[in-house]
Formats: sequence, C-alpha cells, structure tokens
Amino acid sequence: MSVAPVALRLPLQWGEMDSYRHVNNAVYFRWFESARMEYFARLGWPEVERASGVGPILQSTQARFRAPLEWPDEIVVTARVRELAEDRFTMAYEVTSQRLGRLAAEGWGVIVAFDYRAGSKASLPPPVRTAILELEGESLTLSP
Amino acid sequence: MSVAPVALRLPLQWGEMDSYRHVNNAVYFRWFESARMEYFARLGWPEVERASGVGPILQSTQARFRAPLEWPDEIVVTARVRELAEDRFTMAYEVTSQRLGRLAAEGWGVIVAFDYRAGSKASLPPPVRTAILELEGESLTLSP
Amino acid sequence: MSVAPVALRLPLQWGEMDSYRHVNNAVYFRWFESARMEYFARLGWPEVERASGVGPILQSTQARFRAPLEWPDEIVVTARVRELAEDRFTMAYEVTSQRLGRLAAEGWGVIVAFDYRAGSKASLPPPVRTAILELEGESLTLSP
Amino acid sequence: MSVAPVALRLPLQWGEMDSYRHVNNAVYFRWFESARMEYFARLGWPEVERASGVGPILQSTQARFRAPLEWPDEIVVTARVRELAEDRFTMAYEVTSQRLGRLAAEGWGVIVAFDYRAGSKASLPPPVRTAILELEGESLTLSP
Repeated sequence: MSVAPVALRLPLQWGEMDSYRHVNNAVYFRWFESARMEYFARLGWPEVERASGVGPILQSTQARFRAPLEWPDEIVVTARVRELAEDRFTMAYEVTSQRLGRLAAEGWGVIVAFDYRAGSKASLPPPVRTAILELEGESLTLSP
Repeated sequence: MSVAPVALRLPLQWGEMDSYRHVNNAVYFRWFESARMEYFARLGWPEVERASGVGPILQSTQARFRAPLEWPDEIVVTARVRELAEDRFTMAYEVTSQRLGRLAAEGWGVIVAFDYRAGSKASLPPPVRTAILELEGESLTLSP
Repeated sequence: MSVAPVALRLPLQWGEMDSYRHVNNAVYFRWFESARMEYFARLGWPEVERASGVGPILQSTQARFRAPLEWPDEIVVTARVRELAEDRFTMAYEVTSQRLGRLAAEGWGVIVAFDYRAGSKASLPPPVRTAILELEGESLTLSP
Repeated sequence: MSVAPVALRLPLQWGEMDSYRHVNNAVYFRWFESARMEYFARLGWPEVERASGVGPILQSTQARFRAPLEWPDEIVVTARVRELAEDRFTMAYEVTSQRLGRLAAEGWGVIVAFDYRAGSKASLPPPVRTAILELEGESLTLSP
C-alpha cells in the first residue's frame, strides 16, 4: 500500500471534547478539511483556480468512527485520492491516535470541479488531474 | 410522506461561514447533532440511560450538500429514524434554507446502543424502541 | 435605559457544551460576533465598505461570565455602542438565558476603522458615524 | 523575564479562518483554553479536584489582537500566572505566529476556585497554590 501524500499531525484541543468527554464528531470533518486543503495546495489547485476560475466543491462527506478520542492526544490525519473521474474525485481520510496507537476514524469526500465564473460544473483542470496522477501513481482507480 | 418528529429552527451565525463565504461543512454536523439530541430527548433515552447504563454511540455519519448557505439566513433541520434494527438505527436529517426556500443538505447517521457499564454493545432498550415506533409509525423500515 | 438596537434570539446547540456540560467560553464570542455583524448591517457599513474601502477591525474583546448555560435553552444576545470616538467605538454585549431568566454573560469589544485599500487606520466613515448616533441617541458617550 | 511554564505549538486549521480569510476571534479563546488546561494539568489540579471537590471556574477572559493570522501557519500559545490571590488568579496568554515571527495576540483570564460539592466559592487548594508558586517563582504578583 502506498503512503498518503498528505499527513498532518495535530494536537487535540481541550475544547474539541463535548459533554461525553470525547472529541465531538464535527471536529473530525475540520481535520479532514485541513488535510484536503493541504492536498489541494500540493496539487497547485489554488493557482490554477486563480487563472481558470475552476475550483473545488465538496459535494458529500462521510465519517466512520472507530475509537473515541480524549484530550490530551495527538492525531495524524492523512488524505489521498482514491477514484478519479473526468469532473470529480473521491478522497479518503484516516485519523490515527498517537496515544491509542490505532485508527480512530476513516472518512471520505467527493470533490467536484466547478467553474465559478461560468457558474456551472466543469472538467477537472488538466494540471490538477496530472498532479493527482503524479502524487497517487499506481494506487488510483480511474473511472469514466 | 410523514412529518419529521423533530424540526429545529436555527438562525445562521456569521462565524459559521468560512473563507468561501459559505457555511462550513463541519457546521452541518453540529446541526444534525442538535436534531439528534432533541430526538433522543423525545424518546426519553437520557432517563433510560441513567437507569440502565445503555446509551447511544454515533457510529458513522454523512452529509450530501445541495446548496451553499450564506449568513444571514435561518435553517430548519429535521431528524427522523429510517431503519430500525435490534441494536441500532439509521437517522435521516434534512436542512432547509428559509431564504432559498429549498433543501440545502441531507444527512444520515447510524446510532448504535452501547452498555457503558459493561463496556460492550447492547440491544436497544425496549422503551427506546417503543418510543421510536410510536414517533415514526408507518414510515419506518424494520431490519433484523 | 435604552433598548439595544440589536437583539438576536439563538437556541443553544448541544455541541456548544464542553466536558463540564456547560456552554464553552469561546461560544460566547461567536454570539457577540453575530450581534456585531447584525449591528454593522443595520449601520449599512458593508455597503459603505464596498464604496470606500474602510471597514471594521476587532481590536480587542472581553467577556464576563455570570451564570453557566446548559442545553436545551435559548439565549438573547444584544449589542449596543457605548463609546464613540473619531476612529473607533466600544460595543457592549449582553447574553440572557431564557431558561434561567437572567443575565448569563456580558461582553465588550473595541472596533477600529481600517482603510483596507490604503492598509492603514482610518476615521469612521461619516455615514457609519451618523447611523450609530441615530441608533443609540442619548445613551452614547462621545470621546475625542 | 521568565519563560512561560506552558507553551503549546498548534498548526492552524483551514476552517479556523472566517469570511475575512483570517483566523476568527473566537478561535483564540480555544487556544487560550488549551494552554490553560495544560497548565492546570501541570498543577495537578484535576487530581486535587477529584479529592477535594474544589475546581476552577473561568470568571472572565479577554483578548487583544495584534496581527491577523492566515492558514497555513503554526502558532505557539503560552500561559503563565500573573497575579495570585487567596481564591483566584490571573493568567496571561500570548499567541506567536511562526510565519510572521511576531506576537499575534495577547490574552488574560481570571480563574476562581469553586467548591462544586458545596456549591460555593472557595479558597485555592493549598497544593494548587504551592504548585503555582513553584512554576512561576519570582515573576508572580501576590495580592490579598
């Protein structure tokens, strides 16, 4: 299995826990997002978006919780692209607890290309597509 | 189609928007949660948990975004139970924008019964199961 | 005493409580902000900013907690301008719990005018100043 | 000047920025809190609270913003005790941006001892007081 192109190490914050004294479910989506934005930066998508007007939209997202997290701890959140289609791709996230030494959650997101100038869906910009293929190499599923 | 047993009306808060000037994706999961907790209160589950030690765990959750939201606006978030099994159920959420007059997002969650005293999975407490059947009536799918 | 020009009624969200089962301190600043942004909208400041480039910056802010809040509850958060100077003003916020029937917190903020085009501090735009005087009338302290 | 007993290094998260593309003001209070909780852990206060019922309450808090923060960046947030009285103390926080190489914000908080069993204000537990004096040494102001 390949190594994820993006891995962020984040200390938990005390206020991320809720009344059950575990990290609240919404917080995981913030971590997924930080990993996603870091991935987009690695793709050079922000620069492509400024030039072309075509940027990303998060169409759907999902989390499967495996083990509750408790402050203090540090997590590593990874992101990789799993399926690549003409106008969209699927990202997979993993959250690992350093204290527990195990997977705490998995996540997924579908990202769709959008032409913000035309106000309509778009194909993935070729440099973004190329950069994904370079980062992910063999581990990627291509779909039509 | 039946009316959802729980519907919360929530004004957007300015700080729920992110750098794209739309409500951030993680915020929807906070709304789903408020509707879920209100639903649990309607079921009397907090009292049952205090007596029996069997409470809810969110196992997985998901959102599908339909239209971006912008402050100022008010949303209504609804929750209902869709599938009921021996030890778990699936909830469905809908977020409707009052300003747009349309569905802004849908969500789902799988809630599993957990015996916090024994530290193991459990059956849904009978009063919780009965209360779900009473609230949802005909619109519910039963699974084994 | 005058009535506050802005008063927002907000239901608590379950996830705003922290491990102490009370609303977390950072949440109050989100409420202050929503009231502040509503106040700015009442002043017409967003339109003035688009025309002149002079907008608001929050320089400092403060909260004094009077009573802990617990979900479910509804709060009302009010904002008013207390001191008005040439390039800045002080806002005062109050959070009242509907369930407790009492003041839950007070807050303050210093807002400074900033010329985003010139990148430097600025005088309050005259239409913003006039609108504040109209909204607050007699209850306002003028400082140099 | 002494070194702060607590210093946490935290990467910014993308979603901590708001519509102005700067880190939202409420986020700073979350950072102050993480530093405060780390400080309390260093004092052994959680153990003292379990034995005595006397824990901390945040009575008031404040921030002064010096420079806007933008993702990606890392901040260091420090906490120290400045004034120590019989039943309370004042903490000072500093947020430094690694990217800007400068102070981004200062903060303060007043923490009061509370007897959660008796439901009333209390003196600081002696081991907590002693631990503060050991951590802060000479840099501390004592007040009656």
